[in-house]
Amino acid sequence: AARAEALRVRPQRAAEPMEPGGGKRQSKDYALPNSSWSQGMMDLYSRFLEMCKDGTWKRIPSYSNSVDHIPGKKERKDTRLFPRNMDTEGVGFEYAMFLNPSEKRMVCLFQPGPYLEGPSGFAHGGSTATIIDSTIGSCATFVAGRVMTANLSINYRNPIPLGSVVLVDSKVDQVEGRKVFLSCHVRSIDGQTLHAEATALFIRLDSTKSLQQQMSCQ
Amino acid sequence: AARAEALRVRPQRAAEPMEPGGGKRQSKDYALPNSSWSQGMMDLYSRFLEMCKDGTWKRIPSYSNSVDHIPGKKERKDTRLFPRNMDTEGVGFEYAMFLNPSEKRMVCLFQPGPYLEGPSGFAHGGSTATIIDSTIGSCATFVAGRVMTANLSINYRNPIPLGSVVLVDSKVDQVEGRKVFLSCHVRSIDGQTLHAEATALFIRLDSTKSLQQQMSCQ
Repeated sequence: AARAEALRVRPQRAAEPMEPGGGKRQSKDYALPNSSWSQGMMDLYSRFLEMCKDGTWKRIPSYSNSVDHIPGKKERKDTRLFPRNMDTEGVGFEYAMFLNPSEKRMVCLFQPGPYLEGPSGFAHGGSTATIIDSTIGSCATFVAGRVMTANLSINYRNPIPLGSVVLVDSKVDQVEGRKVFLSCHVRSIDGQTLHAEATALFIRLDSTKSLQQQMSCQ
Repeated sequence: AARAEALRVRPQRAAEPMEPGGGKRQSKDYALPNSSWSQGMMDLYSRFLEMCKDGTWKRIPSYSNSVDHIPGKKERKDTRLFPRNMDTEGVGFEYAMFLNPSEKRMVCLFQPGPYLEGPSGFAHGGSTATIIDSTIGSCATFVAGRVMTANLSINYRNPIPLGSVVLVDSKVDQVEGRKVFLSCHVRSIDGQTLHAEATALFIRLDSTKSLQQQMSCQ
């Protein structure tokens, strides 16, 4: 049932990415259920889909290449968006994000697979940082436009067991000129375990300047 | 020549990991040159190997499973150490670490591949966090034994172009009881570009208690 729902409420993308020749290309949306998702992940996903019905929340699709997010941009075939760099379902980052525009909040349902191991049986601190950076970054992008991480500070409270499901809950706290301040909590499904908490500063980019120009003069 | 050097000065591991049956298993050391390494990476690697000759620096091997680092532990076949989760050379994290024990310093030569993309053409902030966490964590482990990341704070100064080579230079600043404080800089080979700077707090683990017990009562 959740799979049918997913198809029904799947939001429209702004535009289909174009092939170099100008034809439409179908990009796989990785933020849809697959057979590696645990029951806990599926239940949570269904609950969020339900909350999408009145428009309070929006499901965010996810592609394997960053230019897939930018309409009209040519895909570079040799690159992959970092958290989507594995094609085997379930081994890496399984996740889906939901945006609450009025709360300036992005929630990511995250199920870390066995290829994200750090300490034996638990997710690597770098994989936790990655899903936090991705979630906070997506939240900042939807609220403030094109941004870049300037600071990310994470307190690791309880290690995340591989195969478990956690909620990465982020929100924009403040916008000051080009600075976007955000915070984030990573909790178990039942809310009982705080796995990590983070704060971040993102810088809003000027589309007329190169990334390197802008980041070097922060 | 650098490849020959690599074989010559390759340090002995403390013990070979054992197969469940008791036989010796050969684990691939990923911290040795391969054809994806750029000339800049090779030159830097050779320079560090040279500095290993008098014992000031030590080359640190790197395996694809965290238990490969622990002699006698049984490998879990379904897991992979996060920064070693891709088998194709050059697409992900290419890196080699060198330890300077007297300076309590660990340097990582890092060449991010095209599967670590975040912003178009540049490394994802999460991949930078991952190589920093891995380098700082290895440094803390060699100085203080088994540890776990408690805090990681990163300032991103200049994005890291995919395919470029950077030096992740970390050191232990202070040890207070179970707390190990470290800092880190990520710079271009020529030292002219500061890509990121980070501070970290690691907690020394008590081998008689489980990870979860210890992390939940920080």
